[in-house]
Amino acid sequence: MKIENPNPIQWRFSERAAALQSSFIREILKVTQRPEIISFAGGLPSPATFPVERMKAAFDKVLSESGKVALQYGPTDGYTPLREWVAASLSTPTCTIKTEQVIMVSGSQQGLDLLGKVLVDEGSKVLVETPSYLGALQAFSVYRPEFASVATDEHGLVPASLHAVADGARLLYALPNFQNPTGRSLSVERRLELVETCAKLGLPLIEDDPYGSLSYTGAPSPKMLNMNPEGVIYMGSFSKVLTPGIRLGYVVAPAALARRIELAKQATDLHTAQLTQMVVHEVVKDGFLDEHIPTIRKLYGDQCRVMLEAMDEHFPASASWTRPDGGMFIWVTLPKQIDAMKLLDKAIEHKVAFVPGAPFYANAPETNTLRLSFVTVPPERIREGIAILGKLIADML
Amino acid sequence: MKIENPNPIQWRFSERAAALQSSFIREILKVTQRPEIISFAGGLPSPATFPVERMKAAFDKVLSESGKVALQYGPTDGYTPLREWVAASLSTPTCTIKTEQVIMVSGSQQGLDLLGKVLVDEGSKVLVETPSYLGALQAFSVYRPEFASVATDEHGLVPASLHAVADGARLLYALPNFQNPTGRSLSVERRLELVETCAKLGLPLIEDDPYGSLSYTGAPSPKMLNMNPEGVIYMGSFSKVLTPGIRLGYVVAPAALARRIELAKQATDLHTAQLTQMVVHEVVKDGFLDEHIPTIRKLYGDQCRVMLEAMDEHFPASASWTRPDGGMFIWVTLPKQIDAMKLLDKAIEHKVAFVPGAPFYANAPETNTLRLSFVTVPPERIREGIAILGKLIADML
Repeated sequence: MKIENPNPIQWRFSERAAALQSSFIREILKVTQRPEIISFAGGLPSPATFPVERMKAAFDKVLSESGKVALQYGPTDGYTPLREWVAASLSTPTCTIKTEQVIMVSGSQQGLDLLGKVLVDEGSKVLVETPSYLGALQAFSVYRPEFASVATDEHGLVPASLHAVADGARLLYALPNFQNPTGRSLSVERRLELVETCAKLGLPLIEDDPYGSLSYTGAPSPKMLNMNPEGVIYMGSFSKVLTPGIRLGYVVAPAALARRIELAKQATDLHTAQLTQMVVHEVVKDGFLDEHIPTIRKLYGDQCRVMLEAMDEHFPASASWTRPDGGMFIWVTLPKQIDAMKLLDKAIEHKVAFVPGAPFYANAPETNTLRLSFVTVPPERIREGIAILGKLIADML
Repeated sequence: MKIENPNPIQWRFSERAAALQSSFIREILKVTQRPEIISFAGGLPSPATFPVERMKAAFDKVLSESGKVALQYGPTDGYTPLREWVAASLSTPTCTIKTEQVIMVSGSQQGLDLLGKVLVDEGSKVLVETPSYLGALQAFSVYRPEFASVATDEHGLVPASLHAVADGARLLYALPNFQNPTGRSLSVERRLELVETCAKLGLPLIEDDPYGSLSYTGAPSPKMLNMNPEGVIYMGSFSKVLTPGIRLGYVVAPAALARRIELAKQATDLHTAQLTQMVVHEVVKDGFLDEHIPTIRKLYGDQCRVMLEAMDEHFPASASWTRPDGGMFIWVTLPKQIDAMKLLDKAIEHKVAFVPGAPFYANAPETNTLRLSFVTVPPERIREGIAILGKLIADML
């Protein structure tokens, strides 16, 4: 039963939708997922670290004991015992995080979307690092801000540079631990200076922290949240310490903002799957992460060292790169004349992939930069791929 | 390590966030979840219908056979075999739905949010039924449209009335099967007329269909999607036929729009949990819903009949109400002088709850209306609650 000869619809998209672009990384990933490619392009955690059996047992337990509750609609702010666990895990002797500050979200990306929704109007100034996390630029872009880039040096974001750009800004988005894409971490002194500067400026500071527990030495860094819980919005995720495919993260915000985020989430997707939250609570509540995370650190730390050693051997002296103490990424700065996009074309011909750095800049991209991930590639393939890349770079000089 | 005496942040919310309000229903639900209350206020499906064992077996199977894939990041448009299943289930002999048209979302509410995101600018005209589904009003409101209400009679939306309001409208949102809140369904003739009218007007038509398979007689209604697949955006959900707490639905749209929705979803939450999609595919792929849905129809149909019989007995002749052939709701129109909000206050004193109708109107609320749900209340409690309500209404006359 069809109507005859309908007029074709002239789709009229919203202004924000007309500006939407696919993540460059996700486009590259489509090309580079062929098994013959040595891909340093991924941002995915290694599936070797996924505690599948543990998760399976938890799904079985939760569904057996509380199936009808787990499968019913749930509260928008999240499963209370898990929110309590998050609050406790972020509290310190001098700074108690309250459960009411914690909103569970469907992965950190949703946290970014919700923060954009409640804090950003069209034309609002949004401050980001140089370079910044691409997913955040993408999430905020939907709300059509003006991005202003805050200066960064080899030690990460430079707090003193905020004064020049902060006037009228709605927020500063920062990723202080093993940043995506650079792998850099802020020193304790810089964190304090940054938090103080933001507090003085009345500037909300978003502390995005997906990689904080992936320090190879195991040494934790103090969270900016705990330095000023009324001025810092903290974002955490189970993607890098448990598994990403379940889509579970959290936003910790001062109470007034947390309530707005909750309302925005209600309109956006009602709530995050109750079953997932109950299962993750079951998995983490007795300290499982304390034994599990060190295995991830070891794997990533070993592979990072292999990559750095191979780079020392094969990359020309005119290139420089970060030497991360944790996380998933190394950031490379090539001599100015090399365009990483052109290098990528050649690299893919030689079955190696990476992500060019330009898309990570909100303004004034540095086209001679690139991001390498080592977490899903075995050591011998890391050495092989880096040797090929080193030769291609040398050829271009 | 805390900074000293930080200035308190003066939170500046976005204009859209400043306008956000909590769903009235969710607020009522907080009051009415006490076990002593006979609540007809819920919009939740009955947990008695949740196939917990079946879900548990599927989680076990998927995690055992494909754990590392299920727990890894996945594609934004969804798990392909499930998208294929959805496309096949919506295809008819004369209308093939393509997999590329299907985007999996984290529950229908997210579908509404994404459609608002890609189709609605500030001030855009959005057409809705009178009354309309509250969650849709809430989702679209974030994008700050002007709502225009389309006339409805006892048979649902009146297609001819569109001409008067459609000029410049971005979309029409309609819920043709057992509508929330009224329980009304559109006749086949009206569907055809509606689809033709929208096609003539070049007006995108959203067909939201969470309850379509919950016809008590089992007789399916033709989908407007199949009458004009290039002009209709179809929304489906597993919440009412399987379980809601997993948060899984889908949007079916013409290809150009589907790609925009996919891009918007990428920025919003990357993708819907891969594990959930694989599990639901495992549950539904061999026809489980064909045996399962009839058990839901039977339960809801029986309880609906009990409620209607009790209303015939206890409600005054000056009230009128719908007699649904499916779904979860009965809509009551009281004599004009009765304010359903005041009735609710009295009802709660007598330990009965329902949802007043006013919040379901985008414009000009009819305060003498209310919505009753019968799906989670056992027959004897339905009779008891309706008797109390009938007496309270009579008292107010």
